[in-house]
Parts: sequence; C-alpha cells; structure tokens
Amino acid sequence: MELLRLQKEVLEANLELVRRGLVLYTFGNASGIDRKTGLVAIKPSGVPYERLTADDMVVCDLDGKIISGGLKPSSDLDTHLELYRSFPSIGGVVHTHSVFATSWAQAGREIPAFGTTHADYFYGPVPCTDELSAEEIAGDYVLNTGKAIVRRFSGIDPLAMPAVLVAGHAPFTWGKTPAEAAYHAVILETVARMAIYTTQLRPDGACGSQALLDRHYLRKHGADATYGQNS
Amino acid sequence: MELLRLQKEVLEANLELVRRGLVLYTFGNASGIDRKTGLVAIKPSGVPYERLTADDMVVCDLDGKIISGGLKPSSDLDTHLELYRSFPSIGGVVHTHSVFATSWAQAGREIPAFGTTHADYFYGPVPCTDELSAEEIAGDYVLNTGKAIVRRFSGIDPLAMPAVLVAGHAPFTWGKTPAEAAYHAVILETVARMAIYTTQLRPDGACGSQALLDRHYLRKHGADATYGQNS
Amino acid sequence: MELLRLQKEVLEANLELVRRGLVLYTFGNASGIDRKTGLVAIKPSGVPYERLTADDMVVCDLDGKIISGGLKPSSDLDTHLELYRSFPSIGGVVHTHSVFATSWAQAGREIPAFGTTHADYFYGPVPCTDELSAEEIAGDYVLNTGKAIVRRFSGIDPLAMPAVLVAGHAPFTWGKTPAEAAYHAVILETVARMAIYTTQLRPDGACGSQALLDRHYLRKHGADATYGQNS
Amino acid sequence: MELLRLQKEVLEANLELVRRGLVLYTFGNASGIDRKTGLVAIKPSGVPYERLTADDMVVCDLDGKIISGGLKPSSDLDTHLELYRSFPSIGGVVHTHSVFATSWAQAGREIPAFGTTHADYFYGPVPCTDELSAEEIAGDYVLNTGKAIVRRFSGIDPLAMPAVLVAGHAPFTWGKTPAEAAYHAVILETVARMAIYTTQLRPDGACGSQALLDRHYLRKHGADATYGQNS
Repeated sequence: MELLRLQKEVLEANLELVRRGLVLYTFGNASGIDRKTGLVAIKPSGVPYERLTADDMVVCDLDGKIISGGLKPSSDLDTHLELYRSFPSIGGVVHTHSVFATSWAQAGREIPAFGTTHADYFYGPVPCTDELSAEEIAGDYVLNTGKAIVRRFSGIDPLAMPAVLVAGHAPFTWGKTPAEAAYHAVILETVARMAIYTTQLRPDGACGSQALLDRHYLRKHGADATYGQNS
Repeated sequence: MELLRLQKEVLEANLELVRRGLVLYTFGNASGIDRKTGLVAIKPSGVPYERLTADDMVVCDLDGKIISGGLKPSSDLDTHLELYRSFPSIGGVVHTHSVFATSWAQAGREIPAFGTTHADYFYGPVPCTDELSAEEIAGDYVLNTGKAIVRRFSGIDPLAMPAVLVAGHAPFTWGKTPAEAAYHAVILETVARMAIYTTQLRPDGACGSQALLDRHYLRKHGADATYGQNS
Repeated sequence: MELLRLQKEVLEANLELVRRGLVLYTFGNASGIDRKTGLVAIKPSGVPYERLTADDMVVCDLDGKIISGGLKPSSDLDTHLELYRSFPSIGGVVHTHSVFATSWAQAGREIPAFGTTHADYFYGPVPCTDELSAEEIAGDYVLNTGKAIVRRFSGIDPLAMPAVLVAGHAPFTWGKTPAEAAYHAVILETVARMAIYTTQLRPDGACGSQALLDRHYLRKHGADATYGQNS
Repeated sequence: MELLRLQKEVLEANLELVRRGLVLYTFGNASGIDRKTGLVAIKPSGVPYERLTADDMVVCDLDGKIISGGLKPSSDLDTHLELYRSFPSIGGVVHTHSVFATSWAQAGREIPAFGTTHADYFYGPVPCTDELSAEEIAGDYVLNTGKAIVRRFSGIDPLAMPAVLVAGHAPFTWGKTPAEAAYHAVILETVARMAIYTTQLRPDGACGSQALLDRHYLRKHGADATYGQNS
C-alpha cells in the first residue's frame, strides 16, 4: 500500500464522521494502518475538517515516531497505537464524542443488545471500560486509555465487537479499514440512540433473545453470511 | 401493469425512505406486487440507495423464484412474500429500522393510540409480535418473521392497521401501493416519536377516548371520509 | 384589504410551517380573516404544500359559506371559524401536529411556564382543553373542538395566551395576523420541547417565579414593551 | 482595534449562533469589547439575523451610552455590560435560549461535569444562579441579572468557567473574544444535551473522577496544554 493511499483513506474516514453529524468543530479523529510497513496515518490535532487534505494526515510508526508531515498528530494518538499493537486484525480506528454513545460512556454503562440493529454489527453488549485510576490519569493518560480498552477486551474478539465506551469519556470504534471504523462509529451512534429510548420504554432492561442476536450477527458476518451482493 | 412501472414505483418508495430520514446506509427495503401477474419487485440487498435504478429492483414470483435481475434480493424478501400471500388487499410492503419505531419494537411494546395523529392512520394500538422462539429463529427465520406477523394479525384488518412492530427487531408497514407503504412508514415514525414523549409526560399511559379515535380514523377512511380533495 | 392579499398572507403562513419543520406531508393548516369584510381564507384540504398557490386558498364567510375557489377547505375549517367568531381580536389561526406540542396535548397536560422563553410569548401555562364528550365527538366534531377551546378560554385574553392544546389531539395557535399565528406555532413547539426536558430534570414541576414571568411577558407586550426597534 | 473590526467580529459571532442552530428567529445576542477604548459592540434588538450588517452592531461605552448606530441595542445589553465590568479578562459575551442549556436553566440545576467533553472546556459543574428576588426583577432587571451572575462567580475564574445558567431563564457564555464566546455557547449546548441523556441513564448523577476532569481541562488550557497546533 502506498503511503498516500493510506492517507487518502484516513482523510475520507475523517470526513465521513463530519458528513454523518458525529463531530463538532475539530472533535474526533480517524486513523489507519498499513500492516505491511507498520505505518499509521492519523488526523492532525485541532485542524478544522474543511481544511484537511490527505497530505495533512500525520504518518508515524507503531511507536509514535513521526515519519512525515509538519503537523502535530491527534492528541489521542497513543490510544490508537495501543489498539493497533494489541489488536492485529484491525486496520482503522475512530474516536468521536458523538452525543448518544458519549452519554452511555459518561454514565459508565455498557449498551445492552436490545435488538437486531445492534446485533447486526456488535456481538453482545458494547463494553464500557473501568474508570482509570488516579495514577493512570496522572501518568501516560492517553496510552493508559488504550490499555484500559485492551484490558476490557480480554477474551473478546475485537472484530466481533468493534466498539468500546471509555468510562467518563467517549467511544472508540475500529474495523478492518479506516472506512469500516468510521462506518461502525455511525452505526454505534444510532444503536446508542435507540438504546436510550428503549431503556425509557423498558426499564427492566431485558434484551433480545440470544438466539435472535446470534442469528442476526451471523447473517452479516462469517462464512455463512447471507447479506449483500458479495456473499 | 407493466413490470418496469412496478419497478419504478418500488424504487420511488425506497427513495422516499431516504428523503424522510428513515434509513441509514443500506438499511431498509420496500417492495410492491402486481396482483394480476403475482410478480413482486423488491430492493436488492446491500446496494447503496444513491446508485439504485428501477432496473435494479429484483423481480420474483410469490414463491421467491427470481424472474429478472442480476442482483440478490433484499435478505428480508421472505417476510415480504409471506405478507403478500396472507394479506391479499395489500400492494406494497416497507421495512425500516427507523429510530423511534424500532425503539418500541426493541422494548417489545405496542404503540398506544395516544391521539388523533395516530388515529388518522392506525385503528388502535400498533401491535407488536411475540418474540420468535429459538426454533423459529434457527429455522427459516425470515419467513418465520412473516408468519409471526400474520399470526399477530389474526382478526385484524391489515388495511385498518397498516403497521406492525416485530419484537426485538423493527417495524414493517404496508399499504395498497408501495408509495402508501412508505407513507405509512414515515407516519409511523412520527407517531412512535410522539408516543415516547407522551409516555414520559403521562406515565399512566391513558389513551385518547375510543370515540375520538374512531372519529379520526373514520374521517380519513371508508365511505364517509371527509378529508382531502377526492372524497 | 384585498382578497388576494389575504390569500397571499395565508399562503405565506402555511409555508412558514413547512420551513420550520412543523408539518409532515399535508398536516397542518393556517388561515386568516379580513375583519372588515368578515371573509376568511384557509388552506385547502390535503393538497401538498409545494403545489399551493395563493389562489388555492379557499375563501369563505364566517358561517363557512364558500365564496371562491374550486377546492375543498381544510377539514378543520369549523374550528377556525369558531375561534374567529369568539375571539374578535385575532386575525390568524394555525393548527399543526408539531411533535412536542402534540405530545403535551396527547398527555392532556398544560405546558407549565418554566421560564422566560415561555413567558416572552405566553402569559401563564398553555392551557389544555377538557376531552370532548362522546356526544360532542359524534356530533359536529370540528365545530365542537372550537367550542371546547372557547370554553377553556373563559376569563383568558386570547392575545395574552395565543395557544391552546386540544386534549388527545394537537395545538392551535393564533395572533393578530396569519404570520403571527404561524410565529406563535413555531415558538410553542420550542417551548413545548424545552418543557419536556425541564420536566425530566425537575420532576417537582416548579415553575419560574410569577414576578419573573410577569417581567418577561410585559417586556415584549403592552404599552411599556422595551424589545425590538419599534417600541 | 478599529471599531469596524470589532463590529465585524461581533457580527460573525452572532452569525455563528445561527449556523449552529442555537437561535430561533431573533433570539440570542453576541457582543464584544475593545479593552483599550472600553467600547462595546452588540447586536441590535429584534432585527432578523439575515439582514444584519457589521454596521448594525450598536456601539456603546461601558456605562451603556450609545456611541454610534441608529438602532436600539439588544434588550440584554445591561447584563453584558455588567459582565464586562466585573470580569476584566473577557472580551466577548453571548446569550442564547438554546434548547438544552435553557432546559437546565429552567430546572434551576447546574450541569454536572459528567465527562471529558465537559471537562475540556468547563472546569467543574456549570453553575446556575439563584433566582432573582421580586425586588431585583421589579427593579433594574437586566442589570440585576448580570449582578446575580457575578455574585454566583465569587471565587470562580470566569475564564476557567466560561458559562453560566440564569435560573428560570437561559445561559450566558463568554470568552477572550466574541468568537470564543460563541464557540463556548455551541459547546455548552452539546454538553447540556449529553448531560440530559446521561442523567437519564445514571439517575444517581455520579460524575467523572476529579482526576479525569482535571486531566482533560489542563490538556487544553494553561501552560502545559498539549492540544492543537499552536501549543
């Protein structure tokens, strides 16, 4: 993969967040990785989206060493890198403060798997990390955010659950590509929104049957998927 | 009816769902039937709406045998077909995951007939199906979804109640034509939204008087309708 | 006032409802009266807004006798006429099923005067009518809706409270002109929306102090008004 | 600073409120001050935003004496002036009736610091003033609103908490410039919106840890800030 092609994909994923109403001003960031070279491209910090070009996407290696670009990378870079190092199957990461997913994160609650819209993309409740300790916050905070996510995913396949809520903060999503990570951020926001209304209508919080959730997830994923034109 | 005209009507119903904000990405699908020939046209599976042409609408018979079109039909086809087979008065079917109606479906609750906006289109509470059993889900799931709807409509005239919530899933609507099915999907979403706020303001869930609900439904439907220019 | 000018004002008030997102499809209607001639112009029934012309506005007298226009008037005409007959100070009436105001109407609850946004336009809680009796519904329903409003306004100045909720139905608003009636419908919708969130945050339902509500209402109305360029 | 440049900045801040959906009709107002000359420019009262020009921004001194402009200033001018007199570090003030922030103000509740979106801009809960007394309302009401804000900010650095809710009324925000005041009004509205949903999901109202809130606020502010390209 050429570097510029990666930068273009990352730019496009960032712009998709804007088009779908997930970001306010310069909030949010998307990145992508070329697994052959181990290079990561990420949105620069605090630059208005309407001015971004592919060339502005900052390129670094998996240790965060800047390879090209005169701009500073997103201040969340170290969280992205920790996810790329720990989840070898993923190729793109997105972070937003989208309204409904962030509200769940702020409440420190996982999003229950209430129905098939959720189950089509997320296999089980969307997990919420523990709160970071005062030491983790005082220390390498951004990196520790990534470590809290990885810790929470012990025993979970990141491709079967391509989203997480960071307690008191906001969501991260990922996917095989930057485009898929952005797609999952958009779906997560809608799922989070419906889950708030569902909670209001069903205070007992009962979820869809496991059989139904399995059926929908497996309809869109894996060897027996039946959705779309390519399967 | 020519086949192409049916395809055009079905395309238009699908696009109306996009214009009204009822679908995200490739979610949702609309179909229509030509009762003379028994042919059904339906949106293909997983194709972006902005690329759809009338010709892309997949045509099949009531048993699901594909008659024309190189694309795979919507993965929800068998639910649509079951509705056409069981409700001979309907000519179009729509399925969406629109936010507010889906929230009611996920809560497994019928939508109470809180007022005249509801009563103008839906005669009584909008029903919610039972949850499908594990056997129904493991078996012919999409067909069984249709059967659960038909079972729930025992004793209900589908044209007097052109909508249903599938528990843990999302709504289906229908009408005499594909356009009317889409129209009912849009109205249902607004009715579902107002019903959430009404529930919040009136926890006892008391509905409008039956006399009022009757008056409004019959004002827009049946021999004595007084609304619009054609009656 | 020429008839065409009245029709243009009424058309414009109807279009304002569309621009502000208060109507879905053909829902809602605005009318206006020329007090010199006693002629009323009103939106025709069930015609799409995008096709409406000033000439389509149906003109009738205060008894509902059609004076000009080949279209049927709004099915809510008799409610409008009752308001014009009973409230001589008003010159325009608007009816919508806007989402938030309708939710309060469906709950059968008046909108509390929670703050200054409310108080700037509505002097006290926005009243809700009693439910109509089965006899009133079975009888001259649309006229009886108007009578229920007028009954509820016994002792209330319609210009100090230019809005009402019809229980189980939806809001009506009015003003000195059709434009003002539409303006009040837009403000009412925002006030109703904020009041839902306020209720959620303050379950005891306590309102702003009467002194504050008085201060704001009187700042925009009456001889001592200080808002805007014309006072 | 030339006067026209100040007027242009103030116009631009007012227009940003419109672009971000924070104002309805002529609601809301932004102002700015040139600290060298002590001159304040503010939106005129009740003029539609689409017609505003920089030249329409009314200029006055800190005592409210009009220096230029044929229009009346915003009826909230005296609140703005009190803030400029009491908070020497601020250069712009914005007042809106934006839906979610106003709902908190109407409930008389401060906005809890639920998460990092809040903490990035507001250091602690967004305060709510006491209700004004009947005497304050009957007296110099607009000035007294400013005094109630200043009283509430005893011991609070206005640049670390650039927003306030006036009980029963609506928010004011400020910043070093008119643009920053408008920016804070937009952020406040999103933070207020997420806080309503968070409250619904977490009725105990527990906030993010102080360590986390400190970390985020200090990441964007002060000598050790690490966000953006300029730090």
